[in-house]
Amino acid sequence: MIIMKTDATEEDIQRVVEEIERSGLRADVSRGEYMTVIGPVGDERRLAFDRIATLAGVKEASMVESPYKLISRQYARFFGEPGANRTVIIGDVHLGNGEPVIIAGPCAIESRPQLMRIAEEVKGAGAQILRGGVFKPRSSVHSFQGLGAAGAEGAEEALCWLKEAGDAFDMPVVTEVRGESMVELVARYVDMMHIGARNMYDQDLLVAVARQRKPVLLKRHFGASIEELLSFSEYVAAEGNKDIILCERGIVPMGKGKSFTRYTLDLAAVPVIHDETYLPVIVDPSHSTGRRDLIYPMSCAAVAAGADGLMIEVHYDPSEALVDGPQMVTPDELRSIVDACRRLYATVKKS
Amino acid sequence: MIIMKTDATEEDIQRVVEEIERSGLRADVSRGEYMTVIGPVGDERRLAFDRIATLAGVKEASMVESPYKLISRQYARFFGEPGANRTVIIGDVHLGNGEPVIIAGPCAIESRPQLMRIAEEVKGAGAQILRGGVFKPRSSVHSFQGLGAAGAEGAEEALCWLKEAGDAFDMPVVTEVRGESMVELVARYVDMMHIGARNMYDQDLLVAVARQRKPVLLKRHFGASIEELLSFSEYVAAEGNKDIILCERGIVPMGKGKSFTRYTLDLAAVPVIHDETYLPVIVDPSHSTGRRDLIYPMSCAAVAAGADGLMIEVHYDPSEALVDGPQMVTPDELRSIVDACRRLYATVKKS
Amino acid sequence: MIIMKTDATEEDIQRVVEEIERSGLRADVSRGEYMTVIGPVGDERRLAFDRIATLAGVKEASMVESPYKLISRQYARFFGEPGANRTVIIGDVHLGNGEPVIIAGPCAIESRPQLMRIAEEVKGAGAQILRGGVFKPRSSVHSFQGLGAAGAEGAEEALCWLKEAGDAFDMPVVTEVRGESMVELVARYVDMMHIGARNMYDQDLLVAVARQRKPVLLKRHFGASIEELLSFSEYVAAEGNKDIILCERGIVPMGKGKSFTRYTLDLAAVPVIHDETYLPVIVDPSHSTGRRDLIYPMSCAAVAAGADGLMIEVHYDPSEALVDGPQMVTPDELRSIVDACRRLYATVKKS
Amino acid sequence: MIIMKTDATEEDIQRVVEEIERSGLRADVSRGEYMTVIGPVGDERRLAFDRIATLAGVKEASMVESPYKLISRQYARFFGEPGANRTVIIGDVHLGNGEPVIIAGPCAIESRPQLMRIAEEVKGAGAQILRGGVFKPRSSVHSFQGLGAAGAEGAEEALCWLKEAGDAFDMPVVTEVRGESMVELVARYVDMMHIGARNMYDQDLLVAVARQRKPVLLKRHFGASIEELLSFSEYVAAEGNKDIILCERGIVPMGKGKSFTRYTLDLAAVPVIHDETYLPVIVDPSHSTGRRDLIYPMSCAAVAAGADGLMIEVHYDPSEALVDGPQMVTPDELRSIVDACRRLYATVKKS
Repeated sequence: MIIMKTDATEEDIQRVVEEIERSGLRADVSRGEYMTVIGPVGDERRLAFDRIATLAGVKEASMVESPYKLISRQYARFFGEPGANRTVIIGDVHLGNGEPVIIAGPCAIESRPQLMRIAEEVKGAGAQILRGGVFKPRSSVHSFQGLGAAGAEGAEEALCWLKEAGDAFDMPVVTEVRGESMVELVARYVDMMHIGARNMYDQDLLVAVARQRKPVLLKRHFGASIEELLSFSEYVAAEGNKDIILCERGIVPMGKGKSFTRYTLDLAAVPVIHDETYLPVIVDPSHSTGRRDLIYPMSCAAVAAGADGLMIEVHYDPSEALVDGPQMVTPDELRSIVDACRRLYATVKKS
Repeated sequence: MIIMKTDATEEDIQRVVEEIERSGLRADVSRGEYMTVIGPVGDERRLAFDRIATLAGVKEASMVESPYKLISRQYARFFGEPGANRTVIIGDVHLGNGEPVIIAGPCAIESRPQLMRIAEEVKGAGAQILRGGVFKPRSSVHSFQGLGAAGAEGAEEALCWLKEAGDAFDMPVVTEVRGESMVELVARYVDMMHIGARNMYDQDLLVAVARQRKPVLLKRHFGASIEELLSFSEYVAAEGNKDIILCERGIVPMGKGKSFTRYTLDLAAVPVIHDETYLPVIVDPSHSTGRRDLIYPMSCAAVAAGADGLMIEVHYDPSEALVDGPQMVTPDELRSIVDACRRLYATVKKS
Repeated sequence: MIIMKTDATEEDIQRVVEEIERSGLRADVSRGEYMTVIGPVGDERRLAFDRIATLAGVKEASMVESPYKLISRQYARFFGEPGANRTVIIGDVHLGNGEPVIIAGPCAIESRPQLMRIAEEVKGAGAQILRGGVFKPRSSVHSFQGLGAAGAEGAEEALCWLKEAGDAFDMPVVTEVRGESMVELVARYVDMMHIGARNMYDQDLLVAVARQRKPVLLKRHFGASIEELLSFSEYVAAEGNKDIILCERGIVPMGKGKSFTRYTLDLAAVPVIHDETYLPVIVDPSHSTGRRDLIYPMSCAAVAAGADGLMIEVHYDPSEALVDGPQMVTPDELRSIVDACRRLYATVKKS
Repeated sequence: MIIMKTDATEEDIQRVVEEIERSGLRADVSRGEYMTVIGPVGDERRLAFDRIATLAGVKEASMVESPYKLISRQYARFFGEPGANRTVIIGDVHLGNGEPVIIAGPCAIESRPQLMRIAEEVKGAGAQILRGGVFKPRSSVHSFQGLGAAGAEGAEEALCWLKEAGDAFDMPVVTEVRGESMVELVARYVDMMHIGARNMYDQDLLVAVARQRKPVLLKRHFGASIEELLSFSEYVAAEGNKDIILCERGIVPMGKGKSFTRYTLDLAAVPVIHDETYLPVIVDPSHSTGRRDLIYPMSCAAVAAGADGLMIEVHYDPSEALVDGPQMVTPDELRSIVDACRRLYATVKKS
């Protein structure tokens, strides 16, 4: 839709109409009391709204239609999609359209024994998918960066352990991939590729990961609107890969004074995303809150809001974890979270 | 705590120490490798950190202790409080420490019949407290401002109806009070005084309302941190009135692109507030989301996160509501929300 | 503009058209490839977009036209206004359309001698309007609240001193008014009424102040968009009072980690507001940064961005100020700021 | 500094002390009226505050010292640095400590003739460094992604043109590098490596770029605090490369209602960064505002705030630009901006 200024001339209006028609669309001109509004009819994605906005007499030029049609529930039928909730299959785990799936494991893989022990314990606590970080994005150059920081070899060794642990305890595995150069290596070992919040805007990475044809877990950037998360997931879908799981993990806090959580968990994103797209959406209560004591209530809240899964960081001894200790729960705590979430899901489902 | 600059002199340090001692506190000086840190020992509220921050050589001066000791769970025992969860009694309804309490009713009171009908229907749907707006804060001078906009007489008539409806259907009543001049009038008719988000920072109103010695419902401002909400509730507590119910109702959205909700509901505020204070906390899913279809999932999520109550706007015909139609649920929808929340609460409680 | 869902029926569309026509406007229906867009033609302010948004098949309903027509530059000619930059006259000071006006004085009036001394010194430093706070909004109930906190008598005494100081040094005076009950009292003593950031949304106060028929200084709330600031200034304009000066004073900081300023000063607001309205706009570098060392550079930046004035807090001894010492400049510092700003203004004007 | 809970036991305190001593630091224990505060003495970077925060009885654990000592002005003398403003030399252009440097050119390189023409014209308008995008980060998969999107060959061709244009018109050149795999290729052709806002958190990219030993232009992420920008620039400095130029380019907008600019330009970041570090800082008025009409006033404001340079996008015909047309200025407009900024700089410098 193009809104003209109150003092736009007839020539200004005509130039906009021509620009629209040149792109193969039709222009509906609506002359109001104060201003004229021009509505393009046709596939709006073919219009350069940026360029139209620079024309004389134009006040605003913006797309009315969705910028993420490929994954949109509303547009599904125009693209031969059923539009019903999609189930993504990771290994033999079905995520979406059913009981919430629990993804759990250490924030960072520190050693083979650490990983094997946590894998066994999270399995026992009810987790279905094993996570473990190889490449850790850190704010300080002086902090532990994950075993992947030692280069491809260190990374591959840790990835081997991850696969081994998954096999040993019968869980598909997922890890964050950081940097295009690591995509193929990671894809050889994992069942799902995880794109972290900091990389949501990294379109090269999105495309490279999409092409591995494995399920993709895409986290919302902490400075991104929901619309941006959906628009960037379109980079994956445009490669023909619609096995996408979206993840809400908190946005940057706002306001003066102490922030009691690391990020602000935007749980309304869960039903909003379900309304906009047929893709499943999960919640990460660990990174969003950064507080062990909030994982339980926020996991329950996420499931009550309709989340298709949870991603939770676990360590048998949080005070020994090399990264993010304050947000780790123990395997025992995980078990009580899983139990509560299952009961809550059953209750919500009946309603 | 006062952090000195790396190049602060011994004289700078001494001046800070003297300033602290002049206020009757003791100063602990800790000399580090790069900088000196000075810790005041005693009641920090007696120190003018603002003033200390202006002294030569001072890098930062801030309070380490809580700025809201009167309502703090941590400090409760120093103030002769039990520190256990507080139950606030409104009429004969107990809020806090039990099943979530449902506050429901129209956004704005439009007429006596409208209010009586909605009161009857929300009661039937399971609500325990009746709400109804007399003074409506609006963004546009051209919108309906509530019956209170006609002055004290219009306000009193609407307040009479509210009391009448509460009596007829056996519910205590609550309404928002806007403007100190209306405080006494409103207090004559309602069982709980509601201070809206826009007025959270209005300390005169807080004090005036606190003095009515009725329960106070204080909403978090949409630009306020949790710390500020707690600090401002201290204005009420300092008047000796600790019958305070805090309410999370969303903070301003952030980020580029479309915001799918009116505000960002910060549900982690519920367990955070429960950790910081013994006061009960409720959630308003109506104003935070602004979307009728999100009231159900976010009500469930709020209860799962531990909310002590919900405040929900209801209208028998949302398309006829004079204010905020898009966020109104019908009485039937309210009933299913109440039912779901009660079942969820029972499930959470068992866990 | 009303955007229909992709699956809206012909009946849905007709109902929207009828609703628009019932309000006396015409409806332009534009049927696109995927969805239908309905544009109301006529005075959009007569439409209840809220209500239309609740109708079946409606995806979004929003106003295309400006919500603040009375003060809009674009709409000026439809309302008999010239649309050129407005000059507001305070006492004998002309603000707008010329050299930036300097408003300076203490944050809080502490005593008659304190005020008289500062008044003399800011006059000497080049200030044209004297400010001094009588009612101080504070985050903590335990802090000094201004002399007005003692009630109407304390307030009146401080207001007398303010007027006396203004007369003695030939400067019109301005103070913040907080609470409707104080409006008339304040109006008797000052040349301009200042509505603080925390009260920007207080429509009752805006209307009461507007009716005093004195110039109004309206500060942007720290959680408000520019659109909201303009919409709320319409409350003043709708009373027939267009002597409005808008003030940018910073919005709440965002992001993790240390915030080096109290608020984020949004200087682009200056040219944006100049583009949207013919009202003058000033900047408050004191409250926005909260840091004495940033007042100079941000004052210069504000003037370079086109600000019509500055509001700066001054104290002869910042370490003795009862409120906000860290953001006070001394009279000498004020003089160098004023000098720099005058030279910058001359330079910008020549360009 | 570690703040203990009010109910921490003596054993809790001892365990924290031991943890600090185990890392080779000393622990200063300060017992207050309500709580105990423990201050580590020594190099705080050796402490795992994350881990300490998980210990029993600990309320908060955080670093008091700067997380970015290598580039800090305060700590300079401890690291053998002069601490005075640093001048970064790009080709033969000196940036920092003098007249603001103008970096200008097209947003995206579209063709050799487009680039050559713009290079000539920006040189004529007073620019000293030529910019031109090869890899364009875009929100929509359906938009033009820059010539680099065609792979290494397309990228190299565009880089050749850039170098050629720089040589022809005697300007060093800069381009954004996206993706580690492109770092070496880009380094062969440019005089300065630019890391875009979206990649500020990409530590692998930062390290790879730093190792090219060319000046690095690091933009602040739109969701990042200033503290984070400084902490991430430490990744570059830790590689021994301190030829870092920081760039403020706006943070995500906040609040309800229309945002009149793409981002919120945080100009106070300029003096704040100058206070914290000796590195130069520039401003990008193009991406921050997204509006051609705001480039002039915000450029002036940036220079008045003390910016060491500006980065401005230019096109001879904004309505033909393939990317970001609405924020392009013409070469004539650039000339008047450069002229105004030079005069302003001279005025500020004299003050």
